[in-house]
Amino acid sequence: MPFIYQRTVRFSDTDAAGVVYFANVLTLCHEAYEASLAATGIDLRAFFSGVDVALPIAHANVDFFRPMFCGDRLVVHLIPKQLQESEFEIAYAVFLEGKLERSVSNAQTRHICIDPGTRKRRSLPLEINQWLEQWATPS
Amino acid sequence: MPFIYQRTVRFSDTDAAGVVYFANVLTLCHEAYEASLAATGIDLRAFFSGVDVALPIAHANVDFFRPMFCGDRLVVHLIPKQLQESEFEIAYAVFLEGKLERSVSNAQTRHICIDPGTRKRRSLPLEINQWLEQWATPS
Amino acid sequence: MPFIYQRTVRFSDTDAAGVVYFANVLTLCHEAYEASLAATGIDLRAFFSGVDVALPIAHANVDFFRPMFCGDRLVVHLIPKQLQESEFEIAYAVFLEGKLERSVSNAQTRHICIDPGTRKRRSLPLEINQWLEQWATPS
Amino acid sequence: MPFIYQRTVRFSDTDAAGVVYFANVLTLCHEAYEASLAATGIDLRAFFSGVDVALPIAHANVDFFRPMFCGDRLVVHLIPKQLQESEFEIAYAVFLEGKLERSVSNAQTRHICIDPGTRKRRSLPLEINQWLEQWATPS
Repeated sequence: MPFIYQRTVRFSDTDAAGVVYFANVLTLCHEAYEASLAATGIDLRAFFSGVDVALPIAHANVDFFRPMFCGDRLVVHLIPKQLQESEFEIAYAVFLEGKLERSVSNAQTRHICIDPGTRKRRSLPLEINQWLEQWATPS
Repeated sequence: MPFIYQRTVRFSDTDAAGVVYFANVLTLCHEAYEASLAATGIDLRAFFSGVDVALPIAHANVDFFRPMFCGDRLVVHLIPKQLQESEFEIAYAVFLEGKLERSVSNAQTRHICIDPGTRKRRSLPLEINQWLEQWATPS
Repeated sequence: MPFIYQRTVRFSDTDAAGVVYFANVLTLCHEAYEASLAATGIDLRAFFSGVDVALPIAHANVDFFRPMFCGDRLVVHLIPKQLQESEFEIAYAVFLEGKLERSVSNAQTRHICIDPGTRKRRSLPLEINQWLEQWATPS
Repeated sequence: MPFIYQRTVRFSDTDAAGVVYFANVLTLCHEAYEASLAATGIDLRAFFSGVDVALPIAHANVDFFRPMFCGDRLVVHLIPKQLQESEFEIAYAVFLEGKLERSVSNAQTRHICIDPGTRKRRSLPLEINQWLEQWATPS
């Protein structure tokens, strides 16, 4: 079961070509990630301050199939997957509300768990394991 | 009766001081404005493309009373007010959810109605008059 | 003598109305502030992390006289002014390059110096006094 | 010979983890693309309005090797490459100034040339062919 996030395209998301600026689609996916963490009960302020553990993004990619316009109601499907003891990736599919047969954009982010002091890899924290269990689709 | 908009602070709203970047508070207020227009039935894509009529912001101001953090649940109260046949302003008060006795930020934007071709002032379009009627507080 | 900052309008600054999104003009002014601090020899990374002292913005206002388009070459004039032992404001005027007789936008930000731990007011740090001396216009 | 773009990391680029927000690295790369177009004499305002021809991004990917901090002076190397009559890609390498032996981030964007009316593919416009000739490295 993917995590589902709904979001209306806002004026500040758009650019002078009249559609969502390409990099903002990744921002929108990251919002879905944040919402999924909150849905698992994770405190976002502490989590993203990166004091105890940090989960920087090591890679992101995104494909754009159709333009998105101000006011468009989007639905993001998010599925995380653990890759290593210290690493997970998230797959995102962005749909127009009511048109779930074809995504307007797909994206992926890969996250590495590190100790913020040493910047060395460490195993994922307990709360991320719980989040993975909750939202990862069994293969 | 003000229009009420709810919004969680996201990671992309913040800066390296750990709180919402100051200019993003105005973006957040503009989101409330967009949501209020949509609530009156206005089509955002057509409205903001500015083909028939444009309503550029001529002035904005914002006061910051307390910092806002990633994950904070905000409530924006929005009250518009017509100033002239071709001009209105919007007052915004941003609150932390559950703490409506004191706002964390107040802002105002002033909008001028122009013909996009000539850039001369013209009277507000019908749909904006309806929006004003719906959300302006009687004085 | 004001501090002078040059900057080309970028695609990401614009919105679907084809011009710079209003709140991004304040971001552009803040960039000029950062460049002026660096010109005084202030280390931006340490300064904005707010560990020793923080200078949050308490108020901002901005007036828009003409739209700015992608590719426009802008010149920002910045003049700071101390208001109190713990407070200063900055006036910004944004011009199109080569058209310095009339600004396209004017803005102001007011900054309060606080101790980040207690969030109480404290006097401005030495490096800000030096910055004020360097860029404030004698009245 | 790549096109070279210099840019200082600004406070608005950062997030509450104290470093550049991941999606903003793509924005920074797009700025380098805009600067390279301007260096070929292309008018950015007309180009990005997409009236005659549009070049939307169909794919982007980005790898992050090291965090970037407010005030960091970055150098972006940009190399475009034509893939088809209607398609090109751009490779970006982001360096810290003075440390060109190892990039802090690499990215790629792929652009499709379309007719904005029909949204069908068409051949690249003359000015983009000139830009490709100027900045593409001979293989």
